[in-house]
Amino acid sequence: MPTYTAPLDDMMFLFENLRNNKNYNELDKYKEVTPDLVKDILQEAAKINQNLILPLAKAGDENPAVLENGVVRTPPGYKEAYKKFIEDGWISLACDPKYGGQGMPKTVSAFFDEMLSSASLAFKLYSELTIGAYNCINHHATDEIKNKYLPKMVEGKWSGTMCLTEPVCGTDLGLLKTKAVEQDDGTFKISGQKIFITSGDHDLTENIIHLVLARASDSPHGTKGISLFLVPKFIVNSDGSVGTRNGVSTGSLEKKMGIGGSATCVLNFDEATGYMIGPKNKGLNSMFTMMNLERIVVGIQGLGISEIAYQNSLSYAKERKQGVSNNSQSKNGADFIIEHADIKKTLLNMKSIIEGERALSFWLAQQIEVSLYHDDAQVRQDATDLVSLMTPVVKSFFTDMGMEITSDAMQLHGGYGFTKDLGIEQLYRDNRITPIYEGTNSVQAIDLVFRKLVNRNGDIIGKYISMIDDDLNISDQKIKPYIDKISKSIDILKKFTDWIKDKIQNEKDDASAACNEYLKVLGLVATGHAWIKVLEVSFKDYDKNKKFYGEKIKTADFFFNRVLSKCENYYDTASTGSKYIMDFKFN
Amino acid sequence: MPTYTAPLDDMMFLFENLRNNKNYNELDKYKEVTPDLVKDILQEAAKINQNLILPLAKAGDENPAVLENGVVRTPPGYKEAYKKFIEDGWISLACDPKYGGQGMPKTVSAFFDEMLSSASLAFKLYSELTIGAYNCINHHATDEIKNKYLPKMVEGKWSGTMCLTEPVCGTDLGLLKTKAVEQDDGTFKISGQKIFITSGDHDLTENIIHLVLARASDSPHGTKGISLFLVPKFIVNSDGSVGTRNGVSTGSLEKKMGIGGSATCVLNFDEATGYMIGPKNKGLNSMFTMMNLERIVVGIQGLGISEIAYQNSLSYAKERKQGVSNNSQSKNGADFIIEHADIKKTLLNMKSIIEGERALSFWLAQQIEVSLYHDDAQVRQDATDLVSLMTPVVKSFFTDMGMEITSDAMQLHGGYGFTKDLGIEQLYRDNRITPIYEGTNSVQAIDLVFRKLVNRNGDIIGKYISMIDDDLNISDQKIKPYIDKISKSIDILKKFTDWIKDKIQNEKDDASAACNEYLKVLGLVATGHAWIKVLEVSFKDYDKNKKFYGEKIKTADFFFNRVLSKCENYYDTASTGSKYIMDFKFN
Repeated sequence: MPTYTAPLDDMMFLFENLRNNKNYNELDKYKEVTPDLVKDILQEAAKINQNLILPLAKAGDENPAVLENGVVRTPPGYKEAYKKFIEDGWISLACDPKYGGQGMPKTVSAFFDEMLSSASLAFKLYSELTIGAYNCINHHATDEIKNKYLPKMVEGKWSGTMCLTEPVCGTDLGLLKTKAVEQDDGTFKISGQKIFITSGDHDLTENIIHLVLARASDSPHGTKGISLFLVPKFIVNSDGSVGTRNGVSTGSLEKKMGIGGSATCVLNFDEATGYMIGPKNKGLNSMFTMMNLERIVVGIQGLGISEIAYQNSLSYAKERKQGVSNNSQSKNGADFIIEHADIKKTLLNMKSIIEGERALSFWLAQQIEVSLYHDDAQVRQDATDLVSLMTPVVKSFFTDMGMEITSDAMQLHGGYGFTKDLGIEQLYRDNRITPIYEGTNSVQAIDLVFRKLVNRNGDIIGKYISMIDDDLNISDQKIKPYIDKISKSIDILKKFTDWIKDKIQNEKDDASAACNEYLKVLGLVATGHAWIKVLEVSFKDYDKNKKFYGEKIKTADFFFNRVLSKCENYYDTASTGSKYIMDFKFN
Repeated sequence: MPTYTAPLDDMMFLFENLRNNKNYNELDKYKEVTPDLVKDILQEAAKINQNLILPLAKAGDENPAVLENGVVRTPPGYKEAYKKFIEDGWISLACDPKYGGQGMPKTVSAFFDEMLSSASLAFKLYSELTIGAYNCINHHATDEIKNKYLPKMVEGKWSGTMCLTEPVCGTDLGLLKTKAVEQDDGTFKISGQKIFITSGDHDLTENIIHLVLARASDSPHGTKGISLFLVPKFIVNSDGSVGTRNGVSTGSLEKKMGIGGSATCVLNFDEATGYMIGPKNKGLNSMFTMMNLERIVVGIQGLGISEIAYQNSLSYAKERKQGVSNNSQSKNGADFIIEHADIKKTLLNMKSIIEGERALSFWLAQQIEVSLYHDDAQVRQDATDLVSLMTPVVKSFFTDMGMEITSDAMQLHGGYGFTKDLGIEQLYRDNRITPIYEGTNSVQAIDLVFRKLVNRNGDIIGKYISMIDDDLNISDQKIKPYIDKISKSIDILKKFTDWIKDKIQNEKDDASAACNEYLKVLGLVATGHAWIKVLEVSFKDYDKNKKFYGEKIKTADFFFNRVLSKCENYYDTASTGSKYIMDFKFN
């Protein structure tokens, strides 16, 4: 079983030194969220993840969730752990105190998301979707609904799901067939089949609150006729108690390559009672509140799994002897493999990506808070635009890098990486869902290029690049070599952006065929930008903690030499266009 | 379950048009191996793989090999299929007629290896190691041993293994501990533990012939004290019949991420009777006869799994509707996903890599035959050098590309790629062993750079690049754009080669940290070289079969625009050196 120690030092470094978004620091509600408080929270978080949750990963892989007589049973140990998990209030961490939450900002909860992803992604999903559903209900539902459902969800006694996908529609929700028939009392009868529903049924909570996309009888075809409904597994009585079973049942559980502990359900809705959330026919908009935050969390899942893969690779490299290194001091045979240049390179690649991603997601967490809670509408809008630009990037880039890192971890372990004993292959399998769910990474790239670069508020990508350019005005000469390197990448990003904006207008297939490469370039530049901020502190405060900051600087050296440098090839390749691709007929 | 149709057209295209190695065509023994004969063989091969072997893939994944009361049982259906497989003579395909083989060249058997890898890698391994052991025994053993063991192995009644790895030594065989104590009769008693032994035990054959690396009592430490021994599971009587059980038993089976149908064994040797093969203390040399051919076959495994992943992605893309394409003719909603530029790009990426690899391995198969059987020792040596240069390249490049292709296949299938029903995720899991076994891909890269570029016969890589340069002297103007592109990549390869030769002498860690990138560049150029040969025929014979050759040309367009172009980044990155890597201490 892999071991795990939460990277508290790096997290606290970010919280103490890079919480420098002016707008974020203007938010009254977080004035009391001091580093001391955060440290206490993260220490407790580390404990529960390292001790209680981590063993569930293997348990869930060996004994996946099962469907018995219509009831889904979670793996051994899940129930007990979940009870403790909610008693300690971890679901409520970032929820509104009005409904029993602890009101922590995303700058804190994102660290918890990372730790929980490192410990057990499958277990995490049972609470993650609850928080997603909480966000959606909190933003779009009436007070009556909120007061009825949210306290129990925040407490973790009830869980949540998002029910979008159907057999013929995943990416393309316009094809959606689930029906909603309005009743005299204003409720709806929901009928249809939903598939790939994470935590669609299980035995951890006393009720499950499904958020279901469906089409009202008189709504138009396509995406413009979709509404959002709250459909509880058990009807909730007017006094808030759990009542009779609603018309929703589990048809089957998916057998999957990874995250076996997570119940992925086929749900059959058969005239189930549902309550409309938000305006009719605007269901996709409401669901996207949930989807967008979820997509960022999926990126953080990739980060969390990368971290545990790195930690175990590092310790294995320090204890496995094989071959004589180029500078061997050994008189009698093999050195620890960490002495080999190629292994060091692999480890630094992991570390430099992980720490850059963590810094980027910390930056993004501040933007999310500003987008949600700042007093000034314009400031909120600007932050919203940045968050929406970065959402597909974080989702795809972090999860793709998660595959690179877990794959490299397997390679580093050799045969022991492919066999099940050490649990490395499970990290690789579990992470493999992250580039797929919540919209495949290619769908993210299309979303980025066709919807996020420019919107009705203007040239979002232009504003973002200007912001980075501004951030590079750093006088410290020690940073200059790094700025020179990222400036080259930014130039490529600018050229690529101009090219793709032109193609969106004039040759859409060229843009479509270039989406994935564009996203990668933006991901690399964004991570490089986060590294520049880390370097700024590291050089400034170097004397305060030479070991910590010295390692940061060396890790950055790797990122700027070996990771960031991929931008050029992506642009060169993508800008060959698509004519020779579209010409191919595949008959 | 994935479907599979053997790519006979492409295979016959290669056999008919690219069997143009002058030295190969001088080999008397293959004068009668005509296209007609080969076509007949491949058609039969297609049938058995498509009909009999393909279903074993899923069976083996769902019911892995098990160890019960000391006996290994293969998955349901394996025994029956294996019986038919050997009755039809597929193991004997490329074996010497002297021992009952059919004497086909590698130019034919490599196609069979590919088909069998597409159908079921796990099942393939039971016969693959037999052929490996056959090659090793055939090259290094005495006539007495050969006559005693080879006919039964060629017939498939007895199988083979290669027993190298021990708990503390995989890559580094110098650490090997298994002992061999010489007896008065000239035999040895072998004792020790071997792990990760593919087909180490099973119920398909009446005997298993282990080739075991061990250290004789009076041999030195390190790699120079290793000898090779033949250790049968059952002692073979002097009349050739199977006698008493030898001192070898199965300790356990590995639980693995993929190829569950293949029994990966811990074997305990307890004073087992063994017979020395080849000279004492030269066991590694003898084993490498087997290893090198095996490594090429592992590359072909990656190719075979890529092919079936491609075929199923293509058919899924033609039947799954999702989203409206940029040039949609559809009036009411979604198009088949094959209409989307990004999906077409993914499919062409697969196809262009697969067909390039197949052409490269066909070229290599001719070189192998020349290296083994040409009359002229110098010609043999030159071919041997080329084969030894390309062995790590084909092993690593094809298997890495296999991961890229099976991963893209999963992405293309979305959620249906991650669930088990369609069997796409199994291709991804099964292929994941190929970059690991027979020496991890990093070990291959080190082998390439430090041992294969230059050897006692001179500047092998220099000769190889000159050969490609010569092959680019093509007058057909239509090929010029492709030659211009590959020439750029060859220039990079030359610069990279000069750089790495210098570093091998003066800064070994720089070379070590650049090995993987160097191998990728060489792999890309070698595949591009193979594509040039395909293009030459395609333009020349275009009018004879416009559809086939038109598709070849368009597929090449993709390769030269989007795949080959990665060379530059690999060189730029690698040539940043390793100082900043080796400086990092990981304390």
